[in-house]
Amino acid sequence: MSSFSRLVRFLARDGRTYYGDAILPRGVTDISKARQARVIKGDIFGKHDVTDQVADIRLLLAPLAPEDVRTVRCLGLNYAAHAKESKMPIPQYPVVFYKPATSLAGPSDPIPVHPIAQQAAGLDYECELVAVIGRACTDVPEAEALDYVLGYAVGNDVSHREWQLRRGGGQWSLGKGFDGWAPFGPGIVSGRVLADPQALGIRTRLNGAVVQESSTADMIFSVRRTIAFLSQGTTLMPGDVIFTGTPQGVGMGRNPPLWLKDGDVVEVELDGVGTCTNKVEFRTARDAKL
Amino acid sequence: MSSFSRLVRFLARDGRTYYGDAILPRGVTDISKARQARVIKGDIFGKHDVTDQVADIRLLLAPLAPEDVRTVRCLGLNYAAHAKESKMPIPQYPVVFYKPATSLAGPSDPIPVHPIAQQAAGLDYECELVAVIGRACTDVPEAEALDYVLGYAVGNDVSHREWQLRRGGGQWSLGKGFDGWAPFGPGIVSGRVLADPQALGIRTRLNGAVVQESSTADMIFSVRRTIAFLSQGTTLMPGDVIFTGTPQGVGMGRNPPLWLKDGDVVEVELDGVGTCTNKVEFRTARDAKL
Repeated sequence: MSSFSRLVRFLARDGRTYYGDAILPRGVTDISKARQARVIKGDIFGKHDVTDQVADIRLLLAPLAPEDVRTVRCLGLNYAAHAKESKMPIPQYPVVFYKPATSLAGPSDPIPVHPIAQQAAGLDYECELVAVIGRACTDVPEAEALDYVLGYAVGNDVSHREWQLRRGGGQWSLGKGFDGWAPFGPGIVSGRVLADPQALGIRTRLNGAVVQESSTADMIFSVRRTIAFLSQGTTLMPGDVIFTGTPQGVGMGRNPPLWLKDGDVVEVELDGVGTCTNKVEFRTARDAKL
Repeated sequence: MSSFSRLVRFLARDGRTYYGDAILPRGVTDISKARQARVIKGDIFGKHDVTDQVADIRLLLAPLAPEDVRTVRCLGLNYAAHAKESKMPIPQYPVVFYKPATSLAGPSDPIPVHPIAQQAAGLDYECELVAVIGRACTDVPEAEALDYVLGYAVGNDVSHREWQLRRGGGQWSLGKGFDGWAPFGPGIVSGRVLADPQALGIRTRLNGAVVQESSTADMIFSVRRTIAFLSQGTTLMPGDVIFTGTPQGVGMGRNPPLWLKDGDVVEVELDGVGTCTNKVEFRTARDAKL
């Protein structure tokens, strides 16, 4: 079991990047408010120490270093009300797709929108509880599944509905896998701190207005059940990241649809974990090459 | 540009695992026939040397070490005749799904079939040209795309049609992502040796009988075009693996369907590269836990 409470990765005042255990003021649980952290030395998935060295946080980064991330799995249609707004039946089994690790980004990074995702309308947000696997497991029973979780974060499964649902030939990954389209963080809260991942308020604010508001209690497949299901004949590895699906309120489910525009600010928030605040940045072909 | 011709990873007589450059008898191109290799020292994606040290190959392994693999992307419906047998339209854009890196296996490994993939009929084979990315690239033009390829292998995109097409809720990854369901190899042939990946015979033999037989000339989206397409707004990384789709002749396309059974031996073969020979092994729940 990890020895940290709230894992963060950050750029410090000294210009270096560290893993740390966030220090929060009394009564505050949103990790994005952390200004200091105890530096962690060692392997976050193995032997490590939370040291007495306190560092000032200049910028919170994606809470896993690129070299520490492995497979990013995502569930679709995992909240009943979202399945309904998507005009899809309640799934009998978890609906699984992937994002590449290169789509992961930090809690305050911009969401870059490449020209091919500007050719048609359809840019959308999805707030999600994110579970990070801490130890390898295969065929894990539901009752033990949470023992393999390093901790929980909140993420935005940014999606382009035209590429996801139509130009992708029915396979969703293409319209969800662009660089930076999976901001997550602001840190990873250990299961010791967050014992029940199924009782957390989760919401999205778009330019300050609440557009998604639900509770992880409404998930069709709980984190526990999802990990047990996904691990059947499939080894989940330390550093595997699971986006567990989004509740109702996405832009696609509205009439008229509500699509993200250049300059929009999207906040995804999970109670007990914190907030990621990401600005939509439409790029030109020239930017994209840089 | 890599300095090797045919990258292999192997267990040597001395009990250690090496990367090497396969030594083939004159006139032989199938890497699975290699008995010796020149040991490679260094980073296969960066600075490395093909040394004069010749090692005896005891067993060819998956040609990339698990820690050297990143994202595994796959194309669906990328041969016209296969799209037809699948009763699907010719796609306008590449149809993309993912397999986890844990599905990769070696050229002579068994294909383990977990009990949940034995609950219904539908176990199928798919021979595919596999391209491995050697250098990071984003927004790469078609004309330069092959410069970023480390080399080519052959792979089997093992698929369970019931989980892929029905129980997966329409998303294909679940029925294709089990441990060991992407054997590939027998090595990775450099683009210097294999300048044109679109003129290669490709086939599958099931218990010795040819069941798929085509040419990569029939691919709808060439390797060049696929890489240019996939890299739009999406950084392809060294160690990313691309399964480029399968030709006609899969078990699903037959009447009656031809499903793999316990003990079947499947060979996938790509001219100029070689053969992977994998035996189907149905597992019990007890095996699966071991």
